[in-house]
Amino acid sequence: MAQQQEEPTEPCTGVDVALTRVFALLGKRWTGLIVAVLTQRPWYFAELRRAIPKISERMLSDRLSELAEAGLLTREVETGPPLRVSYRLTEAGRAVGPALEELRTWAVAYLPGDLPAATACPEADESDTC
Amino acid sequence: MAQQQEEPTEPCTGVDVALTRVFALLGKRWTGLIVAVLTQRPWYFAELRRAIPKISERMLSDRLSELAEAGLLTREVETGPPLRVSYRLTEAGRAVGPALEELRTWAVAYLPGDLPAATACPEADESDTC
Repeated sequence: MAQQQEEPTEPCTGVDVALTRVFALLGKRWTGLIVAVLTQRPWYFAELRRAIPKISERMLSDRLSELAEAGLLTREVETGPPLRVSYRLTEAGRAVGPALEELRTWAVAYLPGDLPAATACPEADESDTC
Repeated sequence: MAQQQEEPTEPCTGVDVALTRVFALLGKRWTGLIVAVLTQRPWYFAELRRAIPKISERMLSDRLSELAEAGLLTREVETGPPLRVSYRLTEAGRAVGPALEELRTWAVAYLPGDLPAATACPEADESDTC
């Protein structure tokens, strides 16, 4: 195998900048999961909090703001009463859906269920959503 | 839009457990990028460190151990001299390649280059690897 290896001549090679942007955004705790949940339909804030049981209100709010800033979702206020805020993916947000689905399929095939998954619901099994 | 929304009856709905495992692993800082780099070919430890300029030796070592534990890569020791350790993806690691490529394509189309990307090389442009 040593023959296949070449010492890089550049000090900076190999890391794709577009993928770096992906993980800078979706790699933050909860963010990828929030996007995945929003691919299903628009959600109210309170619904999202219940859907992601261990996330704090502050953390969910911060993550949604980051996603809005990145252009992946829009925030809509229903003046009510009750006043409610809903979140829906933009075209950019919806466009990441197939990649998330591919990651999910990969995980079902290759990532066994006993790996650390602190954010999963304890009662959920392999095939369920939680 | 309100008509589309239904209050969930379960306290725990929406988060896919397989995707939770994906982000518990690949969402950790550097991990997704390390896997992406390794999709190119096997790499020596020192090469990987140069390819990911801002990663510390300790962090790289930890991330590689986690990926080995998750079954995504194998570690091979060449007794040398010089003694060198190389890392190559397993079938499970290679199988995530298409999903990473899809994320990359999505980012090129939808994530503008001025988003926070602390791990990107400053001199790299949109289409380059860094």
